[in-house]
Amino acid sequence: MFQCIGYSATDATAPLKPFSFTRRDLRADDVAIEVTHCGVCHSDLHQARDDWHNTLYPCVPGHEVVGRVVEVGPAVTAFKVGDKAAVGCFVDSCGDCASCREGLEQFCNAVPTFTYNGKDRVTGETTFGGYSDRILVKESFVLRVPDKLDIARVAPLLCAGITTYSPLRHWKVEKGQKVGVVGLGGLGHMGVKLAAAMGAEVTMITTSPDKEKDAIALGAHKFLLSRDADAMAKHSEYFDFVLNTIPVGHDVDPYMALVKRDGTMVLVGAVEPLKAVNGGPMIFRRKTLAGSLVGGIAETQEMLDFCAEHDVLPDCETIAIQDINEAYERLLKGDVKYRFVIDMASIQADRATA
Amino acid sequence: MFQCIGYSATDATAPLKPFSFTRRDLRADDVAIEVTHCGVCHSDLHQARDDWHNTLYPCVPGHEVVGRVVEVGPAVTAFKVGDKAAVGCFVDSCGDCASCREGLEQFCNAVPTFTYNGKDRVTGETTFGGYSDRILVKESFVLRVPDKLDIARVAPLLCAGITTYSPLRHWKVEKGQKVGVVGLGGLGHMGVKLAAAMGAEVTMITTSPDKEKDAIALGAHKFLLSRDADAMAKHSEYFDFVLNTIPVGHDVDPYMALVKRDGTMVLVGAVEPLKAVNGGPMIFRRKTLAGSLVGGIAETQEMLDFCAEHDVLPDCETIAIQDINEAYERLLKGDVKYRFVIDMASIQADRATA
Repeated sequence: MFQCIGYSATDATAPLKPFSFTRRDLRADDVAIEVTHCGVCHSDLHQARDDWHNTLYPCVPGHEVVGRVVEVGPAVTAFKVGDKAAVGCFVDSCGDCASCREGLEQFCNAVPTFTYNGKDRVTGETTFGGYSDRILVKESFVLRVPDKLDIARVAPLLCAGITTYSPLRHWKVEKGQKVGVVGLGGLGHMGVKLAAAMGAEVTMITTSPDKEKDAIALGAHKFLLSRDADAMAKHSEYFDFVLNTIPVGHDVDPYMALVKRDGTMVLVGAVEPLKAVNGGPMIFRRKTLAGSLVGGIAETQEMLDFCAEHDVLPDCETIAIQDINEAYERLLKGDVKYRFVIDMASIQADRATA
Repeated sequence: MFQCIGYSATDATAPLKPFSFTRRDLRADDVAIEVTHCGVCHSDLHQARDDWHNTLYPCVPGHEVVGRVVEVGPAVTAFKVGDKAAVGCFVDSCGDCASCREGLEQFCNAVPTFTYNGKDRVTGETTFGGYSDRILVKESFVLRVPDKLDIARVAPLLCAGITTYSPLRHWKVEKGQKVGVVGLGGLGHMGVKLAAAMGAEVTMITTSPDKEKDAIALGAHKFLLSRDADAMAKHSEYFDFVLNTIPVGHDVDPYMALVKRDGTMVLVGAVEPLKAVNGGPMIFRRKTLAGSLVGGIAETQEMLDFCAEHDVLPDCETIAIQDINEAYERLLKGDVKYRFVIDMASIQADRATA
């Protein structure tokens, strides 16, 4: 057993604080990873604050985890000590259902084991995430990190990256297609970069006129202000595919209006009741509204390899773990371009004083 | 010019009455069809009563038109006098847009010319539909009626048939798949018959327990009462495909719950705001909500040929044109199994007295 140190929330209102805990003993198929970096996903904040009323305390968040292998179980064959490795939103699944057999572990019919706030399938213990110095994960749920990628910027690919990559691939976005990305946050900025890397003509669609310059810098070819009725009307049925990253329930009709006949809009953020959906435009133009959730392990690896091949990395602001509570406050204000990444070396200061 | 007799609405509140009018002169590519039968679509009633605030009066409804060719223009090659022929919801389109070039004339970007309440693309005159003794239609918009099909029952295939056939084909429903059909009316009963003929396991889903026997008689393998919470829960994620024929805005979430991961529900009736749509199930199970509108000319012909091959015909109640106003009242009460078809020979009585 390894004595870990992480940051945990102990209830819905307290700030995250240093937390000492032991990880389980290494299993035969486990890879032990020294966490070097962990991305800060908006869902970490929701979970820490029990916004979904299902948080198990203490809660150590973090599901965009990158580091180096420090130990492997005897049955591990794909990783060795010293390798770069990464972990995303889940660390296990039943392995036996139709979804798992198709490599869609994110849809495991028995529910995947989430990287944190989950239940270990062997011991039933609460899982603790990447806001910690070490994590143990079953080999088949560990991703390889291509050498070419800057390890300090890889972490957000494990959630924001795959969440936007998977629908672009599943709905077969290709060179020359017109793709709209709604919302310029952690997900949206990856959607722009990935769709552009796939050869699409990418338009950033947002309510904020002051984001135009940044959107273009990220690789968007065009900018569409969703509050500008004339501009929206001009883009009626313009897009083959719209990736909608708005994280809350909203009126989807103005965005569906932008989708071509036989086109698709995919929701990746709004996991709640939508404010309005009109059946008419779907029927009269055979449009599709769908949703998508991260991606399976094989597709996540494919995404990392794609990012290495196409030089795609998120824009990150590196913070120390001691700054996590301030980062959450800034996240609530949308004050980050575009993902906080915790340099986990910073946690050693807490180990020293723990 | 041929002196026609039909039944028209003259304003939103008056009953339909006999109406004499002249059809245009036969154009080179026109087929003149003596109407033997015309189906009564619920939309005829909406249009006659100006429910959509776009009715052009006088209005001669009817877009499920079947008959015999009585005259052809000199450029017509595919039809000759005496052939059985049929006409669906539209009689022309621009022929030049992306939709028309793909054979999806129903989505013509310049709007198809509707069989009635449309504007002739040459003269600008209001189009008059199949509640009349004769109709003139451009050859490329006329369908062949396979000899095997009982001409007295073909008419509803031209709207109710293709409206349900097209989404089943477009979303590739196949043998062994589990298909739910929501709503047992004119569309729903065709959905059951067609999906069963395609080899799917078909479940009728409705609010009315008294429809079970009829649903099974139509070819449904199973029956699911949507008001029975336990039965609905047992069918959670049961269906590969759900064909939703509910004609008004409604809460789609209980039906989306029946759709498998990666499954699709297609709306063919609710051309208006839906009452509730939750993004969560779409995201967490990558489900799709879409719409579909009749079908193109080539697909409509394919559907007629499929129906001949598989002995699929609607259940009809034959009426005389003089009964049309009473039929509308019964339609409003859902009192028809499952489509009224007007025997248009009956109109000769009005010609005699006109």
